[in-house]
Amino acid sequence: MTMQSDIGLIGLAVMGENLALNMESKGFSVAVFNRTTAVTEKFAATRGKGKKITPTSTIEEFIGALKRPRKAMMMIKAGKPVDQVISEVVPLLEKGDVLIDGGNSLFTDTQRRFHDLEGKGIHYIGCGVSGGEEGALKGPSLMPGGSREGYELIAPIFRKIAAQLICEAYAILKNVLGLEAKDLADIFAQWNRGALESYLIEISAEIFRKRDPDTGKALVDVILDKAGQKGTGLWTLQSALSQSVVISTINAAVEARVISSRKEERVAASKILPQPQVPTFSGNRDELVQAVHDALYASKIVSYAQGMELLGAASTAYNWNLNFGDIATIWRGGCIIRAKFLNRITEAYARDPKLHNLLLDQYFTDIIAKTQHNWRVAVSTAINYGVAAPAFSASLAYFDSYRSARLPANLLQAQRDFFGAHTYERIDKPGIFHTDWIGDQPAQEITEPKPTSKRHAGE
Amino acid sequence: MTMQSDIGLIGLAVMGENLALNMESKGFSVAVFNRTTAVTEKFAATRGKGKKITPTSTIEEFIGALKRPRKAMMMIKAGKPVDQVISEVVPLLEKGDVLIDGGNSLFTDTQRRFHDLEGKGIHYIGCGVSGGEEGALKGPSLMPGGSREGYELIAPIFRKIAAQLICEAYAILKNVLGLEAKDLADIFAQWNRGALESYLIEISAEIFRKRDPDTGKALVDVILDKAGQKGTGLWTLQSALSQSVVISTINAAVEARVISSRKEERVAASKILPQPQVPTFSGNRDELVQAVHDALYASKIVSYAQGMELLGAASTAYNWNLNFGDIATIWRGGCIIRAKFLNRITEAYARDPKLHNLLLDQYFTDIIAKTQHNWRVAVSTAINYGVAAPAFSASLAYFDSYRSARLPANLLQAQRDFFGAHTYERIDKPGIFHTDWIGDQPAQEITEPKPTSKRHAGE
Repeated sequence: MTMQSDIGLIGLAVMGENLALNMESKGFSVAVFNRTTAVTEKFAATRGKGKKITPTSTIEEFIGALKRPRKAMMMIKAGKPVDQVISEVVPLLEKGDVLIDGGNSLFTDTQRRFHDLEGKGIHYIGCGVSGGEEGALKGPSLMPGGSREGYELIAPIFRKIAAQLICEAYAILKNVLGLEAKDLADIFAQWNRGALESYLIEISAEIFRKRDPDTGKALVDVILDKAGQKGTGLWTLQSALSQSVVISTINAAVEARVISSRKEERVAASKILPQPQVPTFSGNRDELVQAVHDALYASKIVSYAQGMELLGAASTAYNWNLNFGDIATIWRGGCIIRAKFLNRITEAYARDPKLHNLLLDQYFTDIIAKTQHNWRVAVSTAINYGVAAPAFSASLAYFDSYRSARLPANLLQAQRDFFGAHTYERIDKPGIFHTDWIGDQPAQEITEPKPTSKRHAGE
Repeated sequence: MTMQSDIGLIGLAVMGENLALNMESKGFSVAVFNRTTAVTEKFAATRGKGKKITPTSTIEEFIGALKRPRKAMMMIKAGKPVDQVISEVVPLLEKGDVLIDGGNSLFTDTQRRFHDLEGKGIHYIGCGVSGGEEGALKGPSLMPGGSREGYELIAPIFRKIAAQLICEAYAILKNVLGLEAKDLADIFAQWNRGALESYLIEISAEIFRKRDPDTGKALVDVILDKAGQKGTGLWTLQSALSQSVVISTINAAVEARVISSRKEERVAASKILPQPQVPTFSGNRDELVQAVHDALYASKIVSYAQGMELLGAASTAYNWNLNFGDIATIWRGGCIIRAKFLNRITEAYARDPKLHNLLLDQYFTDIIAKTQHNWRVAVSTAINYGVAAPAFSASLAYFDSYRSARLPANLLQAQRDFFGAHTYERIDKPGIFHTDWIGDQPAQEITEPKPTSKRHAGE
């Protein structure tokens, strides 16, 4: 048997050819198929020559050439041709295989196909590839363009941040209330029947119930608290920074993972650094559980608000022309995120396609109004009990900054004008001003801000 | 009069030539001088041809060719030649000019020269340029190498973060206690006589005292709370992430600046988002002032701990061979940060040159032990009053994570093993394990972690 390919591509028009070459250049072996076999042969003999590209002449041969679970992408004309290929390919696929439509299919067609194949256990993903031929060949991601890029960018981040937020809820419940895994299982199972319903909450409840046969303890309690640290979210971060988007909750979650990865160092530090005097919790258990629930819910909304804003900025910067309503639905389609919460996001963008920040949509504003008191209770309790809740804290600080008409940056501007004559603006009139802070000279109105520093800035 | 140059370079051996070309390639105009004029002329006519490089034939002409405040760098043989050039150059310089030694001078010589010139108001900076000829020409920073690189990397970050931490202290005092600028001036002046003594605290006190002649109000109260948002700290962040160093306080401060820059959006959001129900403060005013003081002090220490750790990681990654004690002294020399606090850092690294985290030095551990209760009081008060204190919160969460032998990442690992068979480690025995979470299969010990996902991960 010959070596099987990592991915398959159906349809060798220019976009398809370029995408196949792009994938191959990223280190993937690619099986290719075109209805007219001569096209396939020509491609393999010319642009595909000497590359890990396997030409196939029948759909059967094509599917047989793919590693399992199979990943096949269609780069064919939207409409009937897609349905035709699906009808030929699907009988040959197995549960767990992935079929991707890279063409410009109507969103409603994609939804229909997704639902048709869902029952067969086949993952169907619709993602228009944009960027033209050049984009297909040289695009910065494996599959450049449109909603797909947004999906690639954000989906794993949301998943990771949601996992981390859940860990903070767990830490507060465990460390402040001293709850055992079995109590936590009940709480999470209950949460999964309400507003927090999600795959990760559901499996967390199952995790808390699992016993370790070796020790008889809850298995979660014997698992090492050391997350892997890969370059998670790095690109997102860079991108966010260069676009001045604040993704503090995402940053905090990434940093929490990094600190967790330094287990040996933490164990050593725990013996040197002063531990806080932690009082026994004397409040109402159920109230704190509800406060933690609300903190998790509100923080999750903030994380989505930040992520969607990042997507918006990226869409503008890279001319992706993202349609936010579609994106939320595509995620849902991809089974990545449960439907209920995403429906709310889709609805928010349907109400206002230009919605700048998810928090400003009435539905989410209302949730924040209902949860904010408890959110503060949970975070301040964590702080007073010495339980690290960096992502909860960052989310709350983001909310408190974002809803503040006045922040203390006026002092910052005054300092910069003091030490470096960087000038400032006023709240009561337009213009750019510089003050002689030590002497008695009247404030100067400056037409152009002075870029030079008077002296090295002090600490 | 001809156009003056941004910076000057004395000494056109290969390193000097390359550094001049490097600076010029970064957009700076460079005046050059070499004792042997023929060398200068040849350089200008060959490698420097067609570039913004101005050859000069006397020291007087060289100094005259520089924009004020002048920045001149010596790339000459260490020892007597440096003292000789200093003696010729200094009479031509003015207060506020900067003289940089890019050679391999002894640290003690640099200290002596620094002190000699300090009295004349001339900034003297010693920084060995490493990376050889190639580094000089193509180095990633304007002035590659050694301690200088660390200095370039970290000094502006510390300054900015200190400014931002002070703003958070100001916000809590102003918003929770309702203090006026004149009260704040007194508090900051008092702080400047204690452990927080620093240039920025000192000028903040002066800023709070300044009246606005137009309105009769405190000037700080009419300044717009909108910080400029340039790519601050971007490289630091990227570098930190790629090296898995956590700089959460620095991130939070940068993000706070970004949010402040979005003034119009905040004003709009403040009218839509629910404001918290803020009780009138009924505690002891002086106690909260002290709590805020302690929070600022502890957060500042955390910011330095993170920054020094970042420097350490960068030093390892880039083979800078940084000597941390020297760096602290060079900063002090550069007037960037006041002596007292930096002396403690220098001493900590003198006690233990391999000190991994500043918090673990006894001197700093003791401060944290004394301040941590108040730190928690200040941050939880901010949270309950709806005052955004992102950098204080991030610092405290960092401390609480770092001193925790056990973090909730065990749940994260369990989730990942549940949805993607990513395996986990245990706290009670070595090995890599995978559990069949839903079924009844016993846990498997795995030699090599499985990289493949069973299914798409849920939210």
